[in-house]
Amino acid sequence: MKIPVVRNVLEVNDRIADQNREIFDRNNLFVINLMSSPGAGKTSLLEKTIERLKDRVNIGVIEGDIQCSFDAERIAKKGVQAIQINTDGACHLDGNMIREAMNQLDLSALDLLIVENVGNLVCPAEFKVGENMKIMLLSVTEGDDKPLKYPLMFQESRVLIINKIDLLPYVDCSVEKIREGVSQLNRDMIIFEVSCRTGEGLDGWTAWLEEQVNRAAISQA
Amino acid sequence: MKIPVVRNVLEVNDRIADQNREIFDRNNLFVINLMSSPGAGKTSLLEKTIERLKDRVNIGVIEGDIQCSFDAERIAKKGVQAIQINTDGACHLDGNMIREAMNQLDLSALDLLIVENVGNLVCPAEFKVGENMKIMLLSVTEGDDKPLKYPLMFQESRVLIINKIDLLPYVDCSVEKIREGVSQLNRDMIIFEVSCRTGEGLDGWTAWLEEQVNRAAISQA
Repeated sequence: MKIPVVRNVLEVNDRIADQNREIFDRNNLFVINLMSSPGAGKTSLLEKTIERLKDRVNIGVIEGDIQCSFDAERIAKKGVQAIQINTDGACHLDGNMIREAMNQLDLSALDLLIVENVGNLVCPAEFKVGENMKIMLLSVTEGDDKPLKYPLMFQESRVLIINKIDLLPYVDCSVEKIREGVSQLNRDMIIFEVSCRTGEGLDGWTAWLEEQVNRAAISQA
Repeated sequence: MKIPVVRNVLEVNDRIADQNREIFDRNNLFVINLMSSPGAGKTSLLEKTIERLKDRVNIGVIEGDIQCSFDAERIAKKGVQAIQINTDGACHLDGNMIREAMNQLDLSALDLLIVENVGNLVCPAEFKVGENMKIMLLSVTEGDDKPLKYPLMFQESRVLIINKIDLLPYVDCSVEKIREGVSQLNRDMIIFEVSCRTGEGLDGWTAWLEEQVNRAAISQA
């Protein structure tokens, strides 16, 4: 008797994520998987991004948290569709979780879907959810040694948003050193420096994002 | 034919961790498992703690990182035994990794062994390594919603060290709200408020730690 064993959880997840991606593509939807450490400012970035874009871009958000629904409540207040996933202990989102959540959204009404992953600089980078692009956030308060200490997320992400630059005068962190670390791991990474608190740098980020959404809509049409 | 399946990775780990603990106990060693998000200040806390205690307490450190050895190099400069574990992608330390590392330390010469876990507010809380006590660090820059969003680590830890309190004037974080969240999860948690940068609050923490080390030595003698 031969016992079938699923040897590669990641392979199975990739297959489900690819199926999600097909559904997103059919709905002309641009999908971002947003990742960072706990407290780097993912939800604040979403709030500010939604405020700036929601008159021109139809945005939906899937919030991933171990438990509670604080973040989806914050996002829903901004007037967009928001779904909360509770992973019940799991440290990352995967394709299956997104599959369930996306069925509760009106995908055809959306241009941009943002998946906010569980706060974790390690595990989420390994699991595709069906996104067009992984985007990561790093707070300057985390220090400038993070690219070389947590390389996978920096390698897997297309964009790095360096947040909380208003705190640079008060912390020992060099943005130049972050950029040097990134250049060793992912030469083509696009980097934005922002402060969600003061608004500095956010216009550059949202203009770029809007361009990506429009470009995806044209190529899929 | 019956196929034996190891159903519970955690059970196996617990067994190895318990064996580590026996070895630590035989060596009259007090062992801490130090956990936090990336960049909350674990290594800085160790540097400051070693500076304050090393004339009276023999300290060893096991550093856990996905890759690189920056942290063990920082610790070794303080004149104590330091070993670096590279997990090669894994998001937490486990009993087996500590078993290998501890064999490279002169345990009989130590009073206090500090295991600095991989920066991750989720997974490390599930894996014992043989410690007497889990201690966690939270930076005020991570925000005051973290206890309810990442409950397990707050439940598993005996002590919470709230770090970077020098940044409180510049961030939207209420220490009172952190304390309220903790009180819902772990009423007996001991809380220290410190700034590794300015030194504020560190004397209280190191005095408490030294007392624990001395108390453990008496009870094991």
